[in-house]
Amino acid sequence: MHANPSGDLLSRLLAALQVLPGVGPRSAQRMALHLLQHERQGGKLLADTLQQAIDRVGHCKTCRNLTTEQQCGVCSNPERDNTLICAVESPADVMALEQAGVFSGCYFVLLGRLSPLDGIGPDDLGFEMLVKRLSDGQVRELIIATNTSVEGEATAHYLYELARPYPVKVSRLAQGVPLGGELEYVDRSTLALSFNNRAPV
Amino acid sequence: MHANPSGDLLSRLLAALQVLPGVGPRSAQRMALHLLQHERQGGKLLADTLQQAIDRVGHCKTCRNLTTEQQCGVCSNPERDNTLICAVESPADVMALEQAGVFSGCYFVLLGRLSPLDGIGPDDLGFEMLVKRLSDGQVRELIIATNTSVEGEATAHYLYELARPYPVKVSRLAQGVPLGGELEYVDRSTLALSFNNRAPV
Repeated sequence: MHANPSGDLLSRLLAALQVLPGVGPRSAQRMALHLLQHERQGGKLLADTLQQAIDRVGHCKTCRNLTTEQQCGVCSNPERDNTLICAVESPADVMALEQAGVFSGCYFVLLGRLSPLDGIGPDDLGFEMLVKRLSDGQVRELIIATNTSVEGEATAHYLYELARPYPVKVSRLAQGVPLGGELEYVDRSTLALSFNNRAPV
Repeated sequence: MHANPSGDLLSRLLAALQVLPGVGPRSAQRMALHLLQHERQGGKLLADTLQQAIDRVGHCKTCRNLTTEQQCGVCSNPERDNTLICAVESPADVMALEQAGVFSGCYFVLLGRLSPLDGIGPDDLGFEMLVKRLSDGQVRELIIATNTSVEGEATAHYLYELARPYPVKVSRLAQGVPLGGELEYVDRSTLALSFNNRAPV
């Protein structure tokens, strides 16, 4: 079989591209050939930037969001209200909320949701970090903004139980977010509306 | 705006990912977060492999296909019949034909097609390299396998004119109804063509 005229390296590139979500053999081939034929400069930049990002992006020590620093841009910003904490499942949710531009508090990123079937329990979601923040008396309100999936609801319930012992108001995004949807794909106005209509639990 | 909690680097990664064909801001975000959250190893490998491919993949000195060597795996393989040359538009076409596994000759990759509107003329398609191969007397047959688009047809015609002065048989991929297709979904021109070119059984 002489199917691959540039030998191993091109095959390895095709395989490597398939770690990208939604990219199969066909798209990988299209991407590889596009980069090699028409976008060498862009491909070089992509390789460099990806390398750097993987080396340098870690998690914020306060909110667990992705950051290149010890503390992320939101947590280290004195203009953000750190008495308000919004708990979300993923960095993508933080981006979506920031793009909606309705929230001036801080976040707590769970980096997942309770999902016993996938072996994800309370220990994986950084709850002890959150409890520490709740117990130091500075937090006024915990806004639960997990997804409205089954696991998200379970996680929300767990967060509510977790916060109950502390003198912290607990609220949830208003039901305006469509059920069964992923937060990161909700349109801005719906997101803003549900943020403003958040109801006490 | 504090939209991007990992500062510049993540934005740069999102921008860099968008050089990939078919990837917009949304998919770029999904890819970046997926790599950083769940696929650091795979991402590292992708960055490395892409870097290497961009540094090392060039063009075969005989057929212009992509290769890491001076000559590609097909041209340097003594078992391939170098008296048959199949002219295609792109390395992707070579891959498709190799996967079909019907051809044991060699290729000539135009790396484009005649397209005056895009400023692509005969000089960009390596025709002089092809003429050199046709004129050395070793080639028996030139198989034209350009796409059946308007530009592809124009290129095919040009190739035919180019080969005419030499004692070389010139052929073209058969055109007609694709296998496994429903006749009712085949476009009119293809249907008309295959009707007019009908072959005795």
